[in-house]
Amino acid sequence: MASTKGQTILCKGAVCWGPGEPLVIEEVEVDPPQFGEVRIQILFSSLCRSDVTFWQDKPKIGLFPRIFGHEASGIIESVGEGVTEFVEGDHVLPLFTGECMKCIHCKSTKSNLCEKYRISSARGVMLSDKKTRFRVNGKPVYHYSGSTFCQYTVLEQENVVKLDPSAPLDKVCLLSCGVAAGLSSVWKVANVQKGSTVAIFGLGTVGLAVAAGAKKVGAGKIIGVDINPKKFERALQFGVTDCVNPLETNRPVQEVVKDMISGGVDYSFECVGNAQVVESALLSCHDGWGMTIICGVAGEKTPFTAHPAVLLLGRTITGTIFGGLKPKSELPKFVEMYMNKEFALEDFITHELPLSEINDAFKLLIDGECLRCVIHL
Amino acid sequence: MASTKGQTILCKGAVCWGPGEPLVIEEVEVDPPQFGEVRIQILFSSLCRSDVTFWQDKPKIGLFPRIFGHEASGIIESVGEGVTEFVEGDHVLPLFTGECMKCIHCKSTKSNLCEKYRISSARGVMLSDKKTRFRVNGKPVYHYSGSTFCQYTVLEQENVVKLDPSAPLDKVCLLSCGVAAGLSSVWKVANVQKGSTVAIFGLGTVGLAVAAGAKKVGAGKIIGVDINPKKFERALQFGVTDCVNPLETNRPVQEVVKDMISGGVDYSFECVGNAQVVESALLSCHDGWGMTIICGVAGEKTPFTAHPAVLLLGRTITGTIFGGLKPKSELPKFVEMYMNKEFALEDFITHELPLSEINDAFKLLIDGECLRCVIHL
Repeated sequence: MASTKGQTILCKGAVCWGPGEPLVIEEVEVDPPQFGEVRIQILFSSLCRSDVTFWQDKPKIGLFPRIFGHEASGIIESVGEGVTEFVEGDHVLPLFTGECMKCIHCKSTKSNLCEKYRISSARGVMLSDKKTRFRVNGKPVYHYSGSTFCQYTVLEQENVVKLDPSAPLDKVCLLSCGVAAGLSSVWKVANVQKGSTVAIFGLGTVGLAVAAGAKKVGAGKIIGVDINPKKFERALQFGVTDCVNPLETNRPVQEVVKDMISGGVDYSFECVGNAQVVESALLSCHDGWGMTIICGVAGEKTPFTAHPAVLLLGRTITGTIFGGLKPKSELPKFVEMYMNKEFALEDFITHELPLSEINDAFKLLIDGECLRCVIHL
Repeated sequence: MASTKGQTILCKGAVCWGPGEPLVIEEVEVDPPQFGEVRIQILFSSLCRSDVTFWQDKPKIGLFPRIFGHEASGIIESVGEGVTEFVEGDHVLPLFTGECMKCIHCKSTKSNLCEKYRISSARGVMLSDKKTRFRVNGKPVYHYSGSTFCQYTVLEQENVVKLDPSAPLDKVCLLSCGVAAGLSSVWKVANVQKGSTVAIFGLGTVGLAVAAGAKKVGAGKIIGVDINPKKFERALQFGVTDCVNPLETNRPVQEVVKDMISGGVDYSFECVGNAQVVESALLSCHDGWGMTIICGVAGEKTPFTAHPAVLLLGRTITGTIFGGLKPKSELPKFVEMYMNKEFALEDFITHELPLSEINDAFKLLIDGECLRCVIHL
């Protein structure tokens, strides 16, 4: 096959032409990478809840047509000028939030929100020239994060991390977002200890990664909360010890949790992205030391409310994007841990589909039928 | 003088007969201490903001008549049965929040909220028999925390800490609440580091103790926020480097703070007890690592609101009673530090008055004229 370097590539991509509209598999023109950029052949891309949130355009950004997808794996096809970190053939994960290694955030031990390359769901273009690298029939199509529901994509090198080439791409794609976020929220943000009690609100992939992470460090009771009882059986397999369906009780769910663990849990994780759930998670925490970690990305701008006294009595609430992981400098450790079988990714993969059936993947996730559906590109 | 041990003592105390009513100096009968209790001769009691809050009955507890005062120092007059830790003549600080050393909170390194003896502003009686130890003309008068605006008071031994007898009682009384709370919020809860930036909302005693604590560890900019500009000159003496009056700007105060320190401060302290101020303090924090610490006790039950995304971007909000200090096991270290001149208490004492002029002390505090007014009993 002749080299495609420096040339526009024509490939298949799933294009969304308007909010909530079925994705259409189009012939997408993908421009060559510009200065500091790389072009990646995407091989696998799993569907994450935030793709759905932005596909529905809940945050009212209105940037269409657009190519979704951000949790993926692939191989460097070509690199732009000034790129020294990557060469053709490198196995990589695209990163929905990047790391420049130079800014105040990247230099801080406390932040993983790179000043320049952090998650920016409302930006649909490349930073350098404010243009997209995608076109369909000559018309520009916007990026969404990695835009990995396309056989080729272009990213700034700061938004890509190199992989051990022996890592199985069809599995480690899950580490570029949800599973790594959940695990790191437990290990790095909360620092859950052996014997700690945990409540998880929302038993999707992030919530179950929290459960798996909590189980691994020897947490005691791990309470799973979800309004879909179909998720309970699977949750138990991930380490959840007790399940609560808020719709099946006539008391506030936090009171149920507090009855199960006298006084409340040591840590509660909000893995839904809903202000009301944030409130319940906070009120489920023990006074004196209870900590709530918000992991869910809220689509709506609804605020949560809390009485200052709830915090004054020693509770803490914080939030995290990607579990506080520094995407380029810390994610490779997670890949290594997976390779050493310190945790499993296979358990999260409930479905695999070709790109042509991507709309089925959206339906499965919305219906709560799947955890991760890996799209084969 | 004959021993008063085992007998009811008749002494002077400032009794509040109804919400917001001027205190009346009455002849108060003080019962002898029961099992596990001590009776303390109070020598000095400074006026703290929460005395005012509960005197006004903002939390609508409605427990009157009542004797206020909780930030104080004194000498053990007699001890009840079962008390082994104290003997007559011991110099002590009463504690508005106690420590049993045995419960889940006392055994936790994270909490200072003893299960049994923690702050309980709504309780006006002793725990053992649910009765008060005060009477005026034979009618019971309720306790408020230490009820230290009385020449003698009775407390459970868990709510008292022994002092180095060389500690000056007219100064260290300040350590039994506000100053210790402010200092420890900086040092223990926030763990402010050299070069950190700080915003302090509310420049009363707690706020200025935060400033003094932040200055001591070498914080960089320390921004003081208050709607009373009369407090600014004094605040600068305590370490505040810049003052902001929210009433003198037509922009939200958090935007002013963020302009002064690009992106916001590392730590913000809410030292007012107001839900709206909590919101401003949170929004004044830097993303990625900013932390808000609520120190102010809110009178009203108004909740604060915040968008989950504010936390998702790496901010944390927490709260603390008494700066996270374990009152019996950690407060003596603060007394020792004061004795070693590691911080000053004198600077906080702006007024001293006899018990007979206690209503003037309330007025001075409400008018923002004083920091600490020490009442000589």
